[in-house]
Amino acid sequence: MSSSSADSPGADAFSADAFRAVDVITTKRDGGELSDAAIDWVIGAYTRGGVAEEQMAALAMAVLLRGMGARETARWTRAMIDSGERLDLSAVGRPLADKHSTGGVGDKITLPLAPLVAACGVAVPQLSGRGLGHTGGTLDKLEAIPGWRAGLSTAEIVTQLRDVGAVICSTTPTLAPADRKLYALRDVTGTVEAVPLIASSIMSKKIAEGTDALVLDVKVGSGAFMKTAERARELARAMVGIGTEHGLRTVALLTAMDRPLGNSAGNAMEVEEAVEVLAGAGPADVVELTLLLAREMLAAVGRDGVDPADALADGRAMDVWRRMISAQGGDADAPLPTAAEVHTVVAPANGTLTRLDAYAVGVAAWRLGAGRARKEDPVSAAAGVRWYARPGQQVLRGQPLLDLHTDDAGRIPGALAALRGGWEVDGDSTPLPLFIDRIGS
Amino acid sequence: MSSSSADSPGADAFSADAFRAVDVITTKRDGGELSDAAIDWVIGAYTRGGVAEEQMAALAMAVLLRGMGARETARWTRAMIDSGERLDLSAVGRPLADKHSTGGVGDKITLPLAPLVAACGVAVPQLSGRGLGHTGGTLDKLEAIPGWRAGLSTAEIVTQLRDVGAVICSTTPTLAPADRKLYALRDVTGTVEAVPLIASSIMSKKIAEGTDALVLDVKVGSGAFMKTAERARELARAMVGIGTEHGLRTVALLTAMDRPLGNSAGNAMEVEEAVEVLAGAGPADVVELTLLLAREMLAAVGRDGVDPADALADGRAMDVWRRMISAQGGDADAPLPTAAEVHTVVAPANGTLTRLDAYAVGVAAWRLGAGRARKEDPVSAAAGVRWYARPGQQVLRGQPLLDLHTDDAGRIPGALAALRGGWEVDGDSTPLPLFIDRIGS
Repeated sequence: MSSSSADSPGADAFSADAFRAVDVITTKRDGGELSDAAIDWVIGAYTRGGVAEEQMAALAMAVLLRGMGARETARWTRAMIDSGERLDLSAVGRPLADKHSTGGVGDKITLPLAPLVAACGVAVPQLSGRGLGHTGGTLDKLEAIPGWRAGLSTAEIVTQLRDVGAVICSTTPTLAPADRKLYALRDVTGTVEAVPLIASSIMSKKIAEGTDALVLDVKVGSGAFMKTAERARELARAMVGIGTEHGLRTVALLTAMDRPLGNSAGNAMEVEEAVEVLAGAGPADVVELTLLLAREMLAAVGRDGVDPADALADGRAMDVWRRMISAQGGDADAPLPTAAEVHTVVAPANGTLTRLDAYAVGVAAWRLGAGRARKEDPVSAAAGVRWYARPGQQVLRGQPLLDLHTDDAGRIPGALAALRGGWEVDGDSTPLPLFIDRIGS
Repeated sequence: MSSSSADSPGADAFSADAFRAVDVITTKRDGGELSDAAIDWVIGAYTRGGVAEEQMAALAMAVLLRGMGARETARWTRAMIDSGERLDLSAVGRPLADKHSTGGVGDKITLPLAPLVAACGVAVPQLSGRGLGHTGGTLDKLEAIPGWRAGLSTAEIVTQLRDVGAVICSTTPTLAPADRKLYALRDVTGTVEAVPLIASSIMSKKIAEGTDALVLDVKVGSGAFMKTAERARELARAMVGIGTEHGLRTVALLTAMDRPLGNSAGNAMEVEEAVEVLAGAGPADVVELTLLLAREMLAAVGRDGVDPADALADGRAMDVWRRMISAQGGDADAPLPTAAEVHTVVAPANGTLTRLDAYAVGVAAWRLGAGRARKEDPVSAAAGVRWYARPGQQVLRGQPLLDLHTDDAGRIPGALAALRGGWEVDGDSTPLPLFIDRIGS
């Protein structure tokens, strides 16, 4: 028989406030689940500076290594949305659909896609970011167009969506400020690669943006964030789950990023390629993926009957593109910048190009000046890589395989080094199918 | 046949400098081993501010969850030592031996031990820290003595070691500054409980301090950092390995901290108890552990033939104590502070006290004012807990079991709450043996 009470003295010995950052961190560190209240507190306090950067860094690493369940991830997303405002796009007067790509090499799909979907009667509010590392950013690409500006006020966004139907612009500082802070922190602390943090980062911005429907293009392969279909499927499911929970019609397509998209990776070059697609031509894979995503966006807002191929063929999409560019100060007819230096790599033998590695091409384009290593770096509009053969095509000895474009010849050796091993003739690689899988709710 | 080279473009694609913090973090995050050069770089850069607090927090969490091997831990320790100076104690002219306890409740052993070992002809350079949380700090205890000061210059440390033989003082800012910075960071980021980080923190300070031999008292049980003998053994082995690698004769004893040591936990009370031991009396467990550790320290510097029990019995240890206290401005004869409020808890029944939980007593003493929650908090000299029975002893209904001492009666309910469940009469607990194990090199 024991004469004392059975309670442990430890459980509440340290707590004075409702939560302490160290307790939230150690709960996740030890593999526990975070309560809704703990998540709301830690995200809110972090946004206001009451949880320090080093505490959030330790928590992010614990989340990366221990994981977060669906409930925790949904709540984390909600808390990030609630850290700022939500755009009110009710004055637009049309259904709204948006697309998000997890990032790839030569991925200029947003450029033809947004005006194409708008030409089919659905407004596209594409609030976007800049590129970092080997994947290009949509805003960086559009800034190759003389006069075009990325920054719009909320009122300008609403007006342009109502009058033109499509807007591609930088995100506003009031949307998910917790995410902005956390994203910058993850970038320097080795905590980018956590599925719950990636999913909540993407979804918090898209939900706060105020769209009705969202189609996610989750890239798979060497040039993508997710190297395998399994990892990509995990991320897709997490994002579709979050979207659905927040009343956003969300679908994810898994698409190939083992090789780059289209025939170029570089800001001005990709604008040029997008214009070719809008003119009814352009690389087959860019056209195919643009139409695939457009159909998903239209279906998500109940416009299944509309065929976006018609709007490409008859010039309506091109018309929206021109109005979209000029509404943001851009001159759609101005010549695009071209590079001072062009270096050509030729095929070493006759045979079949069996591999053109997306990551190698992305790093080469980045090193030529198309991308940035730090967010304050400038990018070159003209720099990039253009290729003349795609995996599966025949090449002839001495035929140009790819061109390196740069403003600075000193960058060419680094780009060539990045491409070493990045392609092969008559190897045994098999490319992924362009469309891999579809994850709906 | 492939026409391209076999190299991957990825490996060196991002590096410009020799190391980047993100690469060091992700290596450990993904379960890899850190190279010697990476460890030297990250500790050095962190000390100089070139690696940010949030980056070190993420790395510490990755180390906690992924572990570090013996080579990495030894190198990490060396890098922390090299972040500052090493004390040169060659002018002392005697062999040097020190002791470190991983921290416990009522653990005042350093107070009688340092003068006792000095009385046997071996100098004891005990550079110590303050308490945080439920374990008391040696400096906090000595500061209960009127006039005593913890801060000494390096020259004063050398002089006192030569003239008196023992010094207990605060660590100097030039010793292992990387550890000071990292310790404060770990405290707020939930990364304290990593064996390689604990081991390297303790050993870097002790090696930089310049002692010839070190005896580690690794506590085991509820009131200790390591709750199980298995975890304590892991920490002991890591520390003995580091010490040996650095040419320091190192041995670790695992000793009981399921119940508190002696008969009190509180600053002035523990000084009083230490003086009783030096006078040849005092609680049996404190005397036993003091002699055990003293014998290990003497043996480690080749003084196996000296029996420290003689120096306790004939008053030589007490003499060194008085000189040690007065050398640092303290008045060894001055009355110690006493508390304004004393609250007695009595035994509820006749029987055997089967458990007196070290953690419960430690939290109670802390809440009464003996300890601090943040390092800038003051502590009370008079506050603490005194107990009248130890596990295994008989208690009678109504007999005082323990007294709570405090300057502020408002603190008593919190201390009583901490003690709830912290002791039992006629329960089925079995106390640990005082001496559990010895880990040598």
